Amino acid sequence: MGEPAGVGGELSLRAWQRRKDHDLPPFLVIDDPERLAALAQSLDMSVPVVPIDAAASAFDAFERGLPVLPLGAAVKAEPGRPSPATAGEVLEAIRLATSLTLSGEASAVVTNPIHKKVLLDAGFAHPGHTEFLAELCGCPGRSVMMLATPGLRTVPVTVHQPLAEVPSSLTGALIVETARTAAIGLQQQFGIANPRLAVAGLNPHAGEDGKLGAEDGLVIAPAVARLQAEGIDAFGPVAADSLFHPAARRGYDAALCMYHDQALIPVKTLDFEHGVNVTLGLPIVRTSPDHGTALDIAGEGLASPVSLLAAITLAGTLAANKQASGTEESAAYDHA
Amino acid sequence: MGEPAGVGGELSLRAWQRRKDHDLPPFLVIDDPERLAALAQSLDMSVPVVPIDAAASAFDAFERGLPVLPLGAAVKAEPGRPSPATAGEVLEAIRLATSLTLSGEASAVVTNPIHKKVLLDAGFAHPGHTEFLAELCGCPGRSVMMLATPGLRTVPVTVHQPLAEVPSSLTGALIVETARTAAIGLQQQFGIANPRLAVAGLNPHAGEDGKLGAEDGLVIAPAVARLQAEGIDAFGPVAADSLFHPAARRGYDAALCMYHDQALIPVKTLDFEHGVNVTLGLPIVRTSPDHGTALDIAGEGLASPVSLLAAITLAGTLAANKQASGTEESAAYDHA
Repeated sequence: MGEPAGVGGELSLRAWQRRKDHDLPPFLVIDDPERLAALAQSLDMSVPVVPIDAAASAFDAFERGLPVLPLGAAVKAEPGRPSPATAGEVLEAIRLATSLTLSGEASAVVTNPIHKKVLLDAGFAHPGHTEFLAELCGCPGRSVMMLATPGLRTVPVTVHQPLAEVPSSLTGALIVETARTAAIGLQQQFGIANPRLAVAGLNPHAGEDGKLGAEDGLVIAPAVARLQAEGIDAFGPVAADSLFHPAARRGYDAALCMYHDQALIPVKTLDFEHGVNVTLGLPIVRTSPDHGTALDIAGEGLASPVSLLAAITLAGTLAANKQASGTEESAAYDHA
Repeated sequence: MGEPAGVGGELSLRAWQRRKDHDLPPFLVIDDPERLAALAQSLDMSVPVVPIDAAASAFDAFERGLPVLPLGAAVKAEPGRPSPATAGEVLEAIRLATSLTLSGEASAVVTNPIHKKVLLDAGFAHPGHTEFLAELCGCPGRSVMMLATPGLRTVPVTVHQPLAEVPSSLTGALIVETARTAAIGLQQQFGIANPRLAVAGLNPHAGEDGKLGAEDGLVIAPAVARLQAEGIDAFGPVAADSLFHPAARRGYDAALCMYHDQALIPVKTLDFEHGVNVTLGLPIVRTSPDHGTALDIAGEGLASPVSLLAAITLAGTLAANKQASGTEESAAYDHA
């Protein structure tokens, strides 16, 4: 569901409408069926909403309409005006999606965007969506974010931190653990047997032999050496401005980036709409569209579903790869 | 000339070869004619080298071959092995190019890359190429770097600094002065009457109302307000990851970036080869290719001239615009 005052509901409806053009795997939405039916009507979208009482019913229902597994209570939301009153249902939807996936009744979680502020106001005690999911999966603190487009995957080592705190937050252990999680994710979910990781430098020209900053030589290079010693095909630190042109991108499966904008600028410059956020390091597959709740256009039918379509498609692919790779959850590289 | 042990010489020869395909304005090279003739022969390039004794002779000579204005001494260089022995000639070429342009005998300076280390070893006392040029022009400390491709221009406010020093180096005065110089450059050299400047945030999501860093609100936003008060069409701070997709790029003429990689990642991701470095804030037009000396492939004829071709073309365009804009050197925005 995500934030019911945001664009999530209309995107779910649109995704079902475009299921054939985009060859989407069958999916169900955890939400209030009456709310979605009313939304479809107000937007003049001919999407039958099909309430279901178990995830397994979604396969049959998907042919006839959008399968919706109800929450415990009705969800009353006004587009554009998120309220702490629906925070309980927002969290319940995430809990239910996670437990259905952990139990194998669903094969992946795709999350519509949430509005963190109303959750915090209602007593939510996690830094964000992903941390809450990790907690629900029983592995707090181990998740890694990946931004994926068809031509580029990036993994930020530090994420939502002020830039001034990035240099001191970068440790060899953090880089190595993030790279390991990325490598396992690329193996198990992306089906890449020997993933190649490019590791970006922190400073201009990757520090230019220490003249433009010490971290590249003192922190990043030793972390790369350690990854190589463990058998991970990593290289770097590479000057970040030379890492994202087409020829460079052919040389790796994911780029490990040192901070948020270093990872997100190239992805969003190359492909602003189709970026998908993938959470690695969890026992389940989880993707989400790479945009927010878009409160300013919620309820108007203007929001583009392309990132959600890409997130659903990728979730299906990753889940199939994961199943094919078997149960070797904690196999290669897990030297922690 | 640039560093004679690098790829500059072969790129100059290639540029003359392709002058017609690329509709290049006539140019002369300041170098050792014998060295270039020998280089052309060793690379089997049929480029007649035409020694000239004054810049004005270049127009006629350009039809027959590559016009070369000699330095005071012969230049003996071994490809791939820069030596302090040629440092005097490297600097003399820059001095001569600058003085010919200041006097109006040439209309712009295009610099091939230099190898800073051998210059420093030979006693060169400037942080870099651009600072030396600024000194020769009589305006030390005032130059601003712009990276230009056909689809994007970026201007880094801080350049060759360790990332850890960037947040404390960013001051309102530095941002305002850089933006003014960029705006004047866009007017006088790019022929844009009312340039629009997008100003990037420093932190993730431009600080997210201070939750992810204070500089966006405390330093950048007031600088943007001051620029607007001066009549400069600036906006921001904008989250840097949302600033470089095609729709966003249509909204400005240059993006003011807070640090090196924020400016260079999008330019080099979109167009790795055609990027041109433009120095604004000098009384002369100066461009350079956006690559280094490429010592590893020097003398092999493998280096791509596309960035030098773009630098020569752009220099011609900027010089023509500058001439058309008249002598209003210190006009609009110069509130310093």
